[in-house]
Amino acid sequence: MRRSQRLVMLTQFFLENPYLQAQLPGFVEKMAASKSSISEDLDIINDVFRKEGIGYLDRTAGSYGGVKYIPEVSQQNKMTFINELCERLEDPERLLPGGYLYMSDILGHPHTMQQIGRIFASAFSNLHIDVVMTVATKGIPLAYAVGQYLGVPVVTVRRDPKVTEGSSVSINYISGSSRKIQTMVLPRRSLEKGAHVCIVDDFMKAGGTITGMINLLKEFDAHLAAIGVLAEADDEEDERVVDDYTSLIKILDVDDRQGKITVQPGNIAIK
Amino acid sequence: MRRSQRLVMLTQFFLENPYLQAQLPGFVEKMAASKSSISEDLDIINDVFRKEGIGYLDRTAGSYGGVKYIPEVSQQNKMTFINELCERLEDPERLLPGGYLYMSDILGHPHTMQQIGRIFASAFSNLHIDVVMTVATKGIPLAYAVGQYLGVPVVTVRRDPKVTEGSSVSINYISGSSRKIQTMVLPRRSLEKGAHVCIVDDFMKAGGTITGMINLLKEFDAHLAAIGVLAEADDEEDERVVDDYTSLIKILDVDDRQGKITVQPGNIAIK
Repeated sequence: MRRSQRLVMLTQFFLENPYLQAQLPGFVEKMAASKSSISEDLDIINDVFRKEGIGYLDRTAGSYGGVKYIPEVSQQNKMTFINELCERLEDPERLLPGGYLYMSDILGHPHTMQQIGRIFASAFSNLHIDVVMTVATKGIPLAYAVGQYLGVPVVTVRRDPKVTEGSSVSINYISGSSRKIQTMVLPRRSLEKGAHVCIVDDFMKAGGTITGMINLLKEFDAHLAAIGVLAEADDEEDERVVDDYTSLIKILDVDDRQGKITVQPGNIAIK
Repeated sequence: MRRSQRLVMLTQFFLENPYLQAQLPGFVEKMAASKSSISEDLDIINDVFRKEGIGYLDRTAGSYGGVKYIPEVSQQNKMTFINELCERLEDPERLLPGGYLYMSDILGHPHTMQQIGRIFASAFSNLHIDVVMTVATKGIPLAYAVGQYLGVPVVTVRRDPKVTEGSSVSINYISGSSRKIQTMVLPRRSLEKGAHVCIVDDFMKAGGTITGMINLLKEFDAHLAAIGVLAEADDEEDERVVDDYTSLIKILDVDDRQGKITVQPGNIAIK
């Protein structure tokens, strides 16, 4: 197979399989090329990925020679994306009664979700993560995007048990802002003991829902590895019960009388 | 820029932007290469994509010269994937009380979801689709995967309205199997009049939920373009109210006494 064809195949393989450890001999056999040719291909791909700011190929030496794609986002790509998102969110058309912001259009774009997923995966690339956890409903697409770029599965916590998932563990927690007691359920089989878990959600105010998920982890003897939220609300009343998290954007103020929304990059900008 | 680098960049661009119409002059400028060189690059990529069974580049002639990536899955890749999925689902460990099958582990893998999304997008590649619709919760990852490969957004119908989504349209429908009256809600802003909609869900028995979504489309003056379900149950009592759909797999029998599950490819195998 010619280099040009190999480059297309290898690029496709890496982009579709983040964090999957592959061995050079496998490529050598499939593509009927020498190990040194494949090795040069990998150098070319690695260079382009780095220049484009989408990550790099992590290679291990030795007789087998392993390689895996680590998705990362350059600081410049990250800030361009986040600043554009802030601008879109400041559109007064998004104002809903009660000071809520309409975000479903943004959350509804698979491509946008993937860009966000890659940014979080990049922020967490030096952590050990086995699984991404989220709570139904709005965090789901975000969690899958993060899971895709970390190469790990997703477990979805529900507010109500489902007969089609078998025996479950449920906990009660207090919603931070409304102070109501709520329930969270996770099927027994869905999380292994000792797993390192990245919690992902679309929105965090006081952090009650996320605290609920942290408590649920304890029931499974699982470990918290990271917390990622798309949008955090400004915590002016200092109610927040979660402190170590990564946010993409921060909603500073929603003034529905003046029709003005103020959004700035979250703490991911300085991480 | 050298051909080898261009091939990596272009492959990445197409894989991450299905159905996005790009113009050759844009590539010519970005990559400082002649139009004929870029055109040869596209021929190489197209050849590899076709050989790998993952789709093709659709090119339009003319002074601008447009190109877009159409994801498709070869018959062989499709059947290999579906047969493996059937085998995994026939594992007796999946049996739950009441004859349900545990599928959350499969639905929890972003990579598996993407493979399924590409297969549905391939089946629907000759249809005009503006948006993918699903109902919370389990259909969501599947819907995003289909939307990703069709290059269109996703709207999620809920069972309960949310204050953070603004004014909504709700309908009542009768769940096919339990005959209970249920409610479905979709925010007014989330679907445009006249949109061509692909409905996606993880499971269909009698089809009541899908009929509910079809009725909801009417409230928005939207059109049904296609229906895709991951798993259909065998409809031995002939209760089904939906007939024109595409299913990936068909669960023929779940015998919880004998511990035996029988699964076969759905009607997508012969489409």
